[in-house]
Amino acid sequence: MDITSLGNSINLVWMLITGFLVMFMQAGFALVEVGMTRIKNANHTMLMNMMIYAIGILGFFLLGFGLMFGGVGALSTLGVDGAVLSREFTITLFGKSFGLFGLSGFALSGITSMGVIGFFLFQLVFMDTTATIPTGALAERWKWKAFVIYGFFVSAILYPIYGNWVWGGGWLSQLGASFGFGHGLVDFAGSSVVHMVGGVCAMAGAAVIGARIGKFKKDGTPVAIPGHNIPMAILGTFILAFGWFGFNPGSTLSGTDPRIAIIAVNTLLASATGAFAAMLYTWWQQGRPDPGMCANGMLAGLVAITAPCAFVTPLAALVIGVIAGFLVCVSVWFVEWVLKLDDPVGAISVHGANGLWGIISLGIFADGTYGDGLNGVKGMVTGLLYGDVSQFFAQLIGGLACFLFVFGLSFIFFKVQDMIMGIRVSPEDEVLGLDRAEMTSIAYPRDIM
Amino acid sequence: MDITSLGNSINLVWMLITGFLVMFMQAGFALVEVGMTRIKNANHTMLMNMMIYAIGILGFFLLGFGLMFGGVGALSTLGVDGAVLSREFTITLFGKSFGLFGLSGFALSGITSMGVIGFFLFQLVFMDTTATIPTGALAERWKWKAFVIYGFFVSAILYPIYGNWVWGGGWLSQLGASFGFGHGLVDFAGSSVVHMVGGVCAMAGAAVIGARIGKFKKDGTPVAIPGHNIPMAILGTFILAFGWFGFNPGSTLSGTDPRIAIIAVNTLLASATGAFAAMLYTWWQQGRPDPGMCANGMLAGLVAITAPCAFVTPLAALVIGVIAGFLVCVSVWFVEWVLKLDDPVGAISVHGANGLWGIISLGIFADGTYGDGLNGVKGMVTGLLYGDVSQFFAQLIGGLACFLFVFGLSFIFFKVQDMIMGIRVSPEDEVLGLDRAEMTSIAYPRDIM
Amino acid sequence: MDITSLGNSINLVWMLITGFLVMFMQAGFALVEVGMTRIKNANHTMLMNMMIYAIGILGFFLLGFGLMFGGVGALSTLGVDGAVLSREFTITLFGKSFGLFGLSGFALSGITSMGVIGFFLFQLVFMDTTATIPTGALAERWKWKAFVIYGFFVSAILYPIYGNWVWGGGWLSQLGASFGFGHGLVDFAGSSVVHMVGGVCAMAGAAVIGARIGKFKKDGTPVAIPGHNIPMAILGTFILAFGWFGFNPGSTLSGTDPRIAIIAVNTLLASATGAFAAMLYTWWQQGRPDPGMCANGMLAGLVAITAPCAFVTPLAALVIGVIAGFLVCVSVWFVEWVLKLDDPVGAISVHGANGLWGIISLGIFADGTYGDGLNGVKGMVTGLLYGDVSQFFAQLIGGLACFLFVFGLSFIFFKVQDMIMGIRVSPEDEVLGLDRAEMTSIAYPRDIM
Repeated sequence: MDITSLGNSINLVWMLITGFLVMFMQAGFALVEVGMTRIKNANHTMLMNMMIYAIGILGFFLLGFGLMFGGVGALSTLGVDGAVLSREFTITLFGKSFGLFGLSGFALSGITSMGVIGFFLFQLVFMDTTATIPTGALAERWKWKAFVIYGFFVSAILYPIYGNWVWGGGWLSQLGASFGFGHGLVDFAGSSVVHMVGGVCAMAGAAVIGARIGKFKKDGTPVAIPGHNIPMAILGTFILAFGWFGFNPGSTLSGTDPRIAIIAVNTLLASATGAFAAMLYTWWQQGRPDPGMCANGMLAGLVAITAPCAFVTPLAALVIGVIAGFLVCVSVWFVEWVLKLDDPVGAISVHGANGLWGIISLGIFADGTYGDGLNGVKGMVTGLLYGDVSQFFAQLIGGLACFLFVFGLSFIFFKVQDMIMGIRVSPEDEVLGLDRAEMTSIAYPRDIM
Repeated sequence: MDITSLGNSINLVWMLITGFLVMFMQAGFALVEVGMTRIKNANHTMLMNMMIYAIGILGFFLLGFGLMFGGVGALSTLGVDGAVLSREFTITLFGKSFGLFGLSGFALSGITSMGVIGFFLFQLVFMDTTATIPTGALAERWKWKAFVIYGFFVSAILYPIYGNWVWGGGWLSQLGASFGFGHGLVDFAGSSVVHMVGGVCAMAGAAVIGARIGKFKKDGTPVAIPGHNIPMAILGTFILAFGWFGFNPGSTLSGTDPRIAIIAVNTLLASATGAFAAMLYTWWQQGRPDPGMCANGMLAGLVAITAPCAFVTPLAALVIGVIAGFLVCVSVWFVEWVLKLDDPVGAISVHGANGLWGIISLGIFADGTYGDGLNGVKGMVTGLLYGDVSQFFAQLIGGLACFLFVFGLSFIFFKVQDMIMGIRVSPEDEVLGLDRAEMTSIAYPRDIM
Repeated sequence: MDITSLGNSINLVWMLITGFLVMFMQAGFALVEVGMTRIKNANHTMLMNMMIYAIGILGFFLLGFGLMFGGVGALSTLGVDGAVLSREFTITLFGKSFGLFGLSGFALSGITSMGVIGFFLFQLVFMDTTATIPTGALAERWKWKAFVIYGFFVSAILYPIYGNWVWGGGWLSQLGASFGFGHGLVDFAGSSVVHMVGGVCAMAGAAVIGARIGKFKKDGTPVAIPGHNIPMAILGTFILAFGWFGFNPGSTLSGTDPRIAIIAVNTLLASATGAFAAMLYTWWQQGRPDPGMCANGMLAGLVAITAPCAFVTPLAALVIGVIAGFLVCVSVWFVEWVLKLDDPVGAISVHGANGLWGIISLGIFADGTYGDGLNGVKGMVTGLLYGDVSQFFAQLIGGLACFLFVFGLSFIFFKVQDMIMGIRVSPEDEVLGLDRAEMTSIAYPRDIM
């Protein structure tokens, strides 16, 4: 035992334990989604949330991890053998070489470093969050077989490629070093990489699969379809807020970086003001607080603070959360009334809209006290309010790239899949309920022998 | 990296992870309270438990933390800049100067030490436990608006002031150094600071708001109003017992203090005998075990061991838990039949009565093996059975001060608030259910489209 | 502070936090079992899961820990005073001395090492898993009083004795050093010690107590009795999968052993393929996925990987999980149709059959990269596929010993108890439901005042 290996141990322990907390968020997503949908689909929604975990593990292990982190430089700080993880597919743009995805490390082949193997687990549970987000937006009408195939698509291809661009050394992370846009796209724990990708994919899926029967009147007016168990959804929110303390502070990948303290505090503060703002908004709009929207407000605050949590002051975290809490309410209205999309749990608004707000808010509020050397750029990460407009533009470019790439690829995926096999259950099955139509059992059998 | 900073890292990691576990207890409280109340109020009770977290964060961040820890000496061991956190409001008593509350550190202003910022998170989630306790005792009749204001009162004023007296360097902690009462009031993880404050505040609130309609017959006989989901309440108890392993062992604030092991074991043992004693008591009294009281017995054991966990032997922990398990049963009877208070979840008995028992039990069983130098007093913390009667008196004074101060201030607060705005819903709303009266949605909508 | 004590701190922190995660699994078991049984017994099943925790703590503290770890050598690596923990009951077999159980350390007497006290907590929560497994198999018909006595039997006697043989320096662990069977029985985190013991004890109990009324038709055909809340059971599965990241990686007892990373990853992978295989199997067999069996498939994968997790490659983990997922499906069928046993939650198949598969799979797939010096045998642990057939035989002997000893002793215990006091409720009580017959309250009262 020497000091270096002790420090490595602290970091590995920290990365694993925070990774376990993130894994537990899967239970939170399951409860939120099941609670906010109807009894007749409860088993189907629950099982989607369980099996996306299993399917995602396979997809990310076999293909995704290699695409995301198999390229040059991504893992240099983790001490992995450079000869193993350094094959990358690149393009040349304006005379500069940019990474698009990695080409090594599939099925962990050739990797013997325990640090990298722990890192694989940590990254995998992040991917899992993205993968589960669309199961809320497409719930109550998604054909099981189509869902299973989607699970491989998102974990093996969609998430890893955008992830490579930001965290794997790919082109968005190089915008700074190559073109002077701040530190390139900076997203500390994944407002864009994890949440916006999930939310935008959910949006594309909801657009292709269409609204649930009865969701919109003939004149297009949306009809509320209440979930069957709101306390369950709020319990899920608690679990998510708990797991987020793994999500954000864990993203230092290091327990020896004292920054974990303020990351945790910022996460806490934004979750509070997000919930509080949503409470005030619904109180003002509807005359009384809306429990489901308060929960979504807390989640919105958490999503938004995920990118900037390491770079902003506590007061900025409060502001970011307040805006997130209002934004999610307005966005839910916008998605229903303007876009005419049916998103039973508000996934598009919570994760998509607030994921975008998260990376933008970093470009505004980053206070220039952290991030020296990030993405190969000297100096601290600094936002608009502290004088660096170029970082703000990097964030905008990153958000735009996320929307275009993820919406585009997801839309094509769902469309093609729909043409080949159909992604939506029959109207009869939908009315009957997916538990009876597609599962062997309903959620709450009541017969007593 | 050197040895000192590695040790600091271990401590910070420990403090944060155990703090996260304490935060998760909020979900446990929510489930216990919702499970032990009625369907028609389930959303209201659940949302109180969620929003108290958000409101409490704001109140404690803006005001409470500074009042509690802004004074002299509280944070000296955390390496905070003395110039920042050292303003204190004091009184002079018998020729000695005593702290009443701190006057710096509001909104974390001026604090740059990551250790202190992590400490803020740890203390905040403890406050949150106190704040949520009265939501159980006042459930099913509390006006939402009144509850929101209460949330700021408890997190910004009530909890921090008593907390300052014990943990912030205030007068109860100085009883030893100044007057020779042992080490002053010793409360390792908060039997009094957290639980008794919550339980006594709940008692004052229950006295002011009055019993639920139908709780007492005309002749004063109490009527059982069963909760709607007992398994949910027991799940909540599991979550609380899990989180308590953050609560107690985390209160070393140090992962490098090997005492964390016996603290965890004592916590475990007292929870077991608390539950076991309550099972035997209800079995004996009612002919069969009472699931709700077994859960309360486990919680009672946990509350009681919270103060003494670091200072007693495992055998003493067993005894403390046994007494707690019986005490909670007797206290529930006493509160209902003698005090004629309506406390739907037993919060007064679990947290108030057993919080008091916790600090007293320390004065009895502390075995003189730990606590050297605590509160500026040389030598180990030693209880009655090991020869130090003065420590026992310190504990009694602390308990008395807690009751008088917290009951007094809370009673005034609730009374004044009731006169100004009314803290109780109308009888019509109460009969209708608070979900329909004060929330936008009921908990379990059953309509299936 | 020096490097050695810092390393010890990291190890203690790791052991405690992972132990807390294992403790939380108790909530997972409770939810799985309550969800998979009927409304009328929900409180009874829930309370069994809570009280087995309390009872088990008492039994293991007073007697079990000393029997399991009080012998020679078990704790040598934890730095405990050899004079305290070194009394052992041994037999002589083929001229060699073999340990059967320890005879010191009861009620932690004489133990002052905080490392050992932390180890006690860690081992206790493992025992608790074993103890709770039969509550699923005997649910809905078990007399409360009989259950309480069982709780002491399993925690104080049954589990510790077999545990001593494998982890306490007893005869199965000595098969290698004394007779050349590899490293003796190797079971990293308890596929046999924890799960198979629980599953086989459940089997003996189910055989003695008999099937629930209505479970089998007169011609012996089994009838499905659906559980009342499948989402609850799946939530429980999530909690178990979460806690397993304490169970397996924590079993290094050391956060400074980098092997924790691959242990966690193998655990993850096997849980995924277990669930996936069960999904495919039920889809193929019944035309649609079975949510309950998918959950059991995930648990089966977790049980199976528990023994080999530290010794195999990720690809082997995938294979072990796949086989576990199929095995649990076939075993559930076998237990019902061939053995004619009634096991409401599938405990025999999940824990018994897959516990056996876990230790056998280690004997097949151990890749010779870990375990040097384990059980006093030089060299790495190596399985059949890597050339060491003797390790494979050690695993078979261990499995056989587990089945014979646990089934035998449990069967005798349940039979004798049944003759003395009856272990099954009356048919009237069973039809009425155990909540009304044996508890003070039902689970979901619906009366609204």
